[in-house]
Amino acid sequence: MPSAAPDTPTEDRPAGLLEVDAGVVDDFTALLSHGQRGMVLNLIADLYPADIALLLRHLPFDEARRLLRWLPPETAGDTVAELEDTFRASLLEDLPQHSLTQLLDALDTDDAADVLADLPEEMALDLLPTLEDTEDLTELLDYGEETAGGLMAREFVAIRPGWTFAEATEQVRRSSEEVDELYTAYVTESDGTLVGVLSLKQLLLSPADVLVRDVMETDFISVTTGVDQEEVGRIVQRYDLVSVPVLDEHGRLMGRITIDDVVDVIRDEAEEDIQIMSGLTGDEGTSDTIFRISRGRLPWLIVGLIGSGLSGSVITTFEGALQQAVVLATFIPIVTAMGGNAAVQSAAIAVQGLSSGELWVDDIFRRVGKEVAVAMVNGAVVAALLCTAVAVFDLGDPSLLVATLGLTMLTISVMATTNGALIPFILTRFGIDPASAMGPFVTTLNDILGLTVYFLIASYIYL
Amino acid sequence: MPSAAPDTPTEDRPAGLLEVDAGVVDDFTALLSHGQRGMVLNLIADLYPADIALLLRHLPFDEARRLLRWLPPETAGDTVAELEDTFRASLLEDLPQHSLTQLLDALDTDDAADVLADLPEEMALDLLPTLEDTEDLTELLDYGEETAGGLMAREFVAIRPGWTFAEATEQVRRSSEEVDELYTAYVTESDGTLVGVLSLKQLLLSPADVLVRDVMETDFISVTTGVDQEEVGRIVQRYDLVSVPVLDEHGRLMGRITIDDVVDVIRDEAEEDIQIMSGLTGDEGTSDTIFRISRGRLPWLIVGLIGSGLSGSVITTFEGALQQAVVLATFIPIVTAMGGNAAVQSAAIAVQGLSSGELWVDDIFRRVGKEVAVAMVNGAVVAALLCTAVAVFDLGDPSLLVATLGLTMLTISVMATTNGALIPFILTRFGIDPASAMGPFVTTLNDILGLTVYFLIASYIYL
Repeated sequence: MPSAAPDTPTEDRPAGLLEVDAGVVDDFTALLSHGQRGMVLNLIADLYPADIALLLRHLPFDEARRLLRWLPPETAGDTVAELEDTFRASLLEDLPQHSLTQLLDALDTDDAADVLADLPEEMALDLLPTLEDTEDLTELLDYGEETAGGLMAREFVAIRPGWTFAEATEQVRRSSEEVDELYTAYVTESDGTLVGVLSLKQLLLSPADVLVRDVMETDFISVTTGVDQEEVGRIVQRYDLVSVPVLDEHGRLMGRITIDDVVDVIRDEAEEDIQIMSGLTGDEGTSDTIFRISRGRLPWLIVGLIGSGLSGSVITTFEGALQQAVVLATFIPIVTAMGGNAAVQSAAIAVQGLSSGELWVDDIFRRVGKEVAVAMVNGAVVAALLCTAVAVFDLGDPSLLVATLGLTMLTISVMATTNGALIPFILTRFGIDPASAMGPFVTTLNDILGLTVYFLIASYIYL
Repeated sequence: MPSAAPDTPTEDRPAGLLEVDAGVVDDFTALLSHGQRGMVLNLIADLYPADIALLLRHLPFDEARRLLRWLPPETAGDTVAELEDTFRASLLEDLPQHSLTQLLDALDTDDAADVLADLPEEMALDLLPTLEDTEDLTELLDYGEETAGGLMAREFVAIRPGWTFAEATEQVRRSSEEVDELYTAYVTESDGTLVGVLSLKQLLLSPADVLVRDVMETDFISVTTGVDQEEVGRIVQRYDLVSVPVLDEHGRLMGRITIDDVVDVIRDEAEEDIQIMSGLTGDEGTSDTIFRISRGRLPWLIVGLIGSGLSGSVITTFEGALQQAVVLATFIPIVTAMGGNAAVQSAAIAVQGLSSGELWVDDIFRRVGKEVAVAMVNGAVVAALLCTAVAVFDLGDPSLLVATLGLTMLTISVMATTNGALIPFILTRFGIDPASAMGPFVTTLNDILGLTVYFLIASYIYL
């Protein structure tokens, strides 16, 4: 297995990792299908859970299922936590219940809740009472999946303000097996109210007899259980946090969210934005069925059909003009491309500015003013290039055609750039994700507007 | 200042934060322009650096400059580290040199290097010798800005394998003022070679007389200075790290990258992808000048012009057909919209799959096979809807037109979906960012292909 030798790291990846590639997948497939359990587990010992997850994803389905059954519960748990939802559910569905119980018990509550949430409901309800953390998990499953409550883990270290550092350290020791990634101890009153936080560095460096309340940081950032996960991501990013405590409405500590989960949220939200921009609905994944994929793509294809049908009816309206000068049809793609491209460009900047906080809804007029200036420059440049091309290729009646096209391109540039910049502000004001402004919506809209402008100008000048 | 009262948190934001909004900006503008330094600094004390950065961004430029001059060096440094590059450079340019020196000395080396890198070169060269960490900074500035070397800070805690835990803790104490976010101590040999890592939790919980080498983790993940920042982001994300050590080619520890910087990289790379998809070049920001914005947008507008010119020439080629049946022009927008939308949808999924590792370049045929199946389903649905609409609205010669359009839509759906899915694989194979496949490139390509198919089919069936 030369491609997998851990002592031949390549330039652009970290040393010491077994890289899962097509060769490794083939090797594992062979070993798995021949029932070589010992060798497989030997090789697996060199892999991180994220890499085993990658391997599972690329193995033939039956071999993946077999590998999952062979893994020790702890490893299986950590691996399953790294898998994508749909694939995970199908992989776990026919695992015997006692294996699932072992696997879920090995997980932190936040990951276990995620796995449970994706299983068929009946199966999850059967499993729940067999688990160690039944109560915590039932509670976590009650929160919306995309809220702070749904994202948090119930494992955390809680200490009291009146304790000494020696007592606090003892508490950390007691919780240390349960709480994996430990950066902060939370200081709570006996009713669970969070009153301060203490970093592990402070715990390590303060004398044993100092009281927690004399050193703890009382000015901390927290979120409440109902906060949307996107907002959690923004807060963690903004204030450079590695974990954030989650409180109920009375200020009681309910759990904590760690940075690794927030990083996943940030990536998921970015992917979601790109999918919205690309005219996809329903969070398509690479392992989805053809039916599911088709269902997620059809809505925007149909919207596109209706929108372009309207564009078509604009052309039909001006059929008389086209019959007089078929050359006008040649420029239809140019008109629609200019409008769509200019609108998407200005929309992208408005969306990013709004989501990063660089732009506020109040900035709308300043922003649009700037965009109009840009649109005039770019419209003039593109118009000049197009007019030159028309003159060079000697199409139709040059001077009138040049006038028509120049004026059209300039008008479309300003119009499309302006509405591209405006729409994200309007959507944000109405609480709609502005990313949808960059999708087929804005291009379709500008096809209709652009063609109308074009034929109106052509009718007056050229005909 | 009711909107800013820290004791009236709203539902969807963390308690205890002063929210910077338009009202707060107005209040600060007034105080700053009236020279109310005491009151300003009093209010500022309630703000985190990220919030002061937001405030600076929205204040009139002169007031922002004044506020920056008033801030204590430590706060000014932390605030400046949160600002966007272009805006930061213009804000710092006319600060007196001694203020800049103080401000940079208050920063960690990674942030200080970033700030220096964005200043005019002459200014940076003048400043460098006046700083505390001249040597470290000179070294950091030598690495590419988008590499692990450019991202890392030189501040870290290094301990020796032969030390006891008591000695190690003492070393942490000595470094604690310099190293802010401390999660891991790095175990190095005397020549600087990294041989292990020790979490703060292990340091806290192990007895004082145990040797570091007996507890340290020797199986750690690291990167080398030359690794691209996007790859660093992927590794940190994959293996759920909070910090990652950076080594030179001899395995010596050069610095460490913390999760907050990685989160910024992940966000920046996502924004970059969205900009590429939207036909923007040159990393446009909201504070860029009109000239710079225009220059970043024109390339794709011009490519769009050329591409749509080619589409136009396809139409010109079939001018004869159009003259026979002007009704064909009506369907031009429908043909181009279907091709563009279908291609962008399948390209988006391929790009995301490739970037997350769910898809490998080897998966190309399996992926395209699935896409063809989806395209046949969706093509059939859209074709059926379009044909129904044509029949209902009684356009042209129904039966032949219906046959032409049905066949065209089905063909375009398959063709566009296929090339949308293929192109990202091809680009990845040649080392080009596949996100560019989702931009104007793929829509323009499919305009040309779609129109050609349409007019060919129309010529054979309809005319």
